[in-house]
Amino acid sequence: MTTSQIAALVGAELRGPGDIVITGPCTLALAGPGSLTFIRDQAFVARWAGSKASAALISAGLSIPEPGPGRALLVVGDADLALIKVLERFAPAPPAAPAGVHATAIVDESAAVAATAHVGPQCIIGTGVHIGAGAVLYAGAIIGEHVRIGEGTILHPRVTVMERCIIGRRCTLHPGVVIGADGFGYRPSPDGRGVLKIPHTGNVEIHDDVEIGANTCVDRGKFGPTVIGAGTKIDNLVQVAHNVTIGRACLIAGGVGIAGSTSIGDGVIIGGQAGLKDNIEIGAGARIAAMSAIMSDVAPKATMVGAPAVGHIEFFRRIAALKKLTNR
Amino acid sequence: MTTSQIAALVGAELRGPGDIVITGPCTLALAGPGSLTFIRDQAFVARWAGSKASAALISAGLSIPEPGPGRALLVVGDADLALIKVLERFAPAPPAAPAGVHATAIVDESAAVAATAHVGPQCIIGTGVHIGAGAVLYAGAIIGEHVRIGEGTILHPRVTVMERCIIGRRCTLHPGVVIGADGFGYRPSPDGRGVLKIPHTGNVEIHDDVEIGANTCVDRGKFGPTVIGAGTKIDNLVQVAHNVTIGRACLIAGGVGIAGSTSIGDGVIIGGQAGLKDNIEIGAGARIAAMSAIMSDVAPKATMVGAPAVGHIEFFRRIAALKKLTNR
Amino acid sequence: MTTSQIAALVGAELRGPGDIVITGPCTLALAGPGSLTFIRDQAFVARWAGSKASAALISAGLSIPEPGPGRALLVVGDADLALIKVLERFAPAPPAAPAGVHATAIVDESAAVAATAHVGPQCIIGTGVHIGAGAVLYAGAIIGEHVRIGEGTILHPRVTVMERCIIGRRCTLHPGVVIGADGFGYRPSPDGRGVLKIPHTGNVEIHDDVEIGANTCVDRGKFGPTVIGAGTKIDNLVQVAHNVTIGRACLIAGGVGIAGSTSIGDGVIIGGQAGLKDNIEIGAGARIAAMSAIMSDVAPKATMVGAPAVGHIEFFRRIAALKKLTNR
Repeated sequence: MTTSQIAALVGAELRGPGDIVITGPCTLALAGPGSLTFIRDQAFVARWAGSKASAALISAGLSIPEPGPGRALLVVGDADLALIKVLERFAPAPPAAPAGVHATAIVDESAAVAATAHVGPQCIIGTGVHIGAGAVLYAGAIIGEHVRIGEGTILHPRVTVMERCIIGRRCTLHPGVVIGADGFGYRPSPDGRGVLKIPHTGNVEIHDDVEIGANTCVDRGKFGPTVIGAGTKIDNLVQVAHNVTIGRACLIAGGVGIAGSTSIGDGVIIGGQAGLKDNIEIGAGARIAAMSAIMSDVAPKATMVGAPAVGHIEFFRRIAALKKLTNR
Repeated sequence: MTTSQIAALVGAELRGPGDIVITGPCTLALAGPGSLTFIRDQAFVARWAGSKASAALISAGLSIPEPGPGRALLVVGDADLALIKVLERFAPAPPAAPAGVHATAIVDESAAVAATAHVGPQCIIGTGVHIGAGAVLYAGAIIGEHVRIGEGTILHPRVTVMERCIIGRRCTLHPGVVIGADGFGYRPSPDGRGVLKIPHTGNVEIHDDVEIGANTCVDRGKFGPTVIGAGTKIDNLVQVAHNVTIGRACLIAGGVGIAGSTSIGDGVIIGGQAGLKDNIEIGAGARIAAMSAIMSDVAPKATMVGAPAVGHIEFFRRIAALKKLTNR
Repeated sequence: MTTSQIAALVGAELRGPGDIVITGPCTLALAGPGSLTFIRDQAFVARWAGSKASAALISAGLSIPEPGPGRALLVVGDADLALIKVLERFAPAPPAAPAGVHATAIVDESAAVAATAHVGPQCIIGTGVHIGAGAVLYAGAIIGEHVRIGEGTILHPRVTVMERCIIGRRCTLHPGVVIGADGFGYRPSPDGRGVLKIPHTGNVEIHDDVEIGANTCVDRGKFGPTVIGAGTKIDNLVQVAHNVTIGRACLIAGGVGIAGSTSIGDGVIIGGQAGLKDNIEIGAGARIAAMSAIMSDVAPKATMVGAPAVGHIEFFRRIAALKKLTNR
């Protein structure tokens, strides 16, 4: 694609030649001739002069010199959104996933697999499972009894979905995800000599358009479901315990742990490695900083920081007070 | 089951009708007609009025109004223990695991698999392995050379047990567990140009009645074993490093990390995402709060909080002091 | 081997009999007759008297009584390095990995697998993959389209390498590792009703002699690669996000999380469960304490501690100031 074709694709104002051939996007640091890079804030502008990229997507309003000979700038309202369009255009095709069941997959005869679904090599599909139209199960999915996988959902290699769990439509589960393992629930035994295991008879319900990162675990409920709301995105290595309820369109970064029966409202954003106590409520639109320890209910739209977490204003006041102490 | 049958099952005092048909247990929030819910402390009592549940298990001594028409309360000494009995009664049967070896499993001819054990599809059983009576290996277990799996132990799908490790009786390992990967041990190389890997020649010994959560890792010892004591329960995504020794009946929540050669006494409780330094000793009965950083030995029965952790009384004094600073 | 043979192997000064037969190495606590243990600092000397070990490797310069009858001490310059030699000698052979492809492996006809490589049972090798000489893929590796695996690299059971990623020579990947899942990247959608997924069109490049621990995840780049430099060692359950760049010979302990596009210099050491913000730079030779939260750039060779992290001197001053406050 040429710079003028890309400008047309993303609705950019083109500064510089329109006939530069772009072979793909790249970061400012690693870009070479033929690369398109992107500049979303002023901090990156300084690196453009030293970059070998042939062109850059840049957000309108940033101050930047003219591109110079043989280079072009594509000015757009939002460089991030424009980048998504460019990446979609240059993205390699996903691995092949033709409709049908691979010869090495083991599918129980009672399972209903849509004719347009792909069931890859070494998948195991249990009794009474339902796989929706256009679903893609890459290699090695293990799908327990009576699980339902919605239309268009993608299971990357080696996903495990335990019995009776329900996955919505257009979800994406990355490698190593475990849905529906038992929750971690015990009670001291009456004889005082150990613990009794609480049976976990519930399941997991994942609504539409959810994405779950590699090796993340979502445990089944003790009774009733663990729920992940539509459009929520969860990163790698996250722990979602039994009977947690997560609302719609939340973003939960890597390494977060959410303890049992905690309830999270819509649109909540949780930074990496934060921990949430059991049986608390997080209001809609709240923001929780990375590595924070949330020990009690959080109000809607609050921003919480620290361990134990407090409001972000109080947090920064405490840090300032501590700093002052050591300057005496 | 009717309310009077459940009352008999759990030894409850029944308040209200005995002929209500209960179809299953459910949380207060999600319960509908036919549901049995449970109320273990006063905080939940207020939600009972608004719940659609037909009945509730409730701990004796809580103050609660009469159930009203068509609803029943079942008063018990300990609602948690009664709930376990109810959940066991209503629990769906576990996935089928008939005695025998699935046709797609690969079992080395030198392995000794008990006739009553179940070896599921795509399991791989190495040289000299011993699988005890009644053990259940669901799909995709990979069992290395000379591993021993005790009687009645359950391996959920996709568990990996590396060579020479020993798993006791009646253990439960959840999906994605990795037992016996190499520990993380290196030394600077004498030429100063990198590191040398320390060979890990030991193994992992897991005693009876241990449960290990999804995607948790227990590394093998450098020499000698990494040990997990009888009755200990470990949650998801926990890291247990080489040569760690964990005592009996410990509870270790999700995301915890325990560094090399640390020793943990009996009955220790560790909250989620806590981290324990290498080569320290945690006394029996100690409690470690979630997300704490344990940097040195902990006395028996001590309660430690914070990063770096201190005793809980000192911890809350420090938090109070910090709060006061910012109120000046 | 006898004590004198071991002394010769590691270049030790032998104190005590040279004819004691050593059956293997063991920890001080668990050692029995025939065991060789090791003592690397004065703290361990006291335990030697009570240990049942027949011999010990000990670093020169430590003060220790004579071994007594029937026991020997082997004095070396560096007990850690000597121990590596001993462990290598006593290490059991690794699981068999004969050259060739197992009958149950599924190898695309376009893949180039070196004749000397081992491809174990149930491995799946995609289109255009290249597997180098002497590489070992134990059971259940899933290797995506156009992946390259270098000479002599070992993939333990159940490793997943997604399409187009590149693994260097002599690397070791432990069970459950996921290389090349999509990064966690979204932007608010223009209609304000959710988020758009950023396509991740890049890959992961792992250079030579890298080791990656069990269930660790390394995400692919948005565009351009996520890079792990030669000789770097990563422990279990670590999250390396999209477009992170890690230098040479770093040591990254268990449970660490590194957010997107962060750059880490050579020789950096990161303690367990530390978290690093996105888009920051960590200078070469920096040390980051366990459980620290790194929120901004770190200077080369700096030592950072705490959440949010500060230099270690400032950190300990703050802890001291806090302690003083509560003693008033």
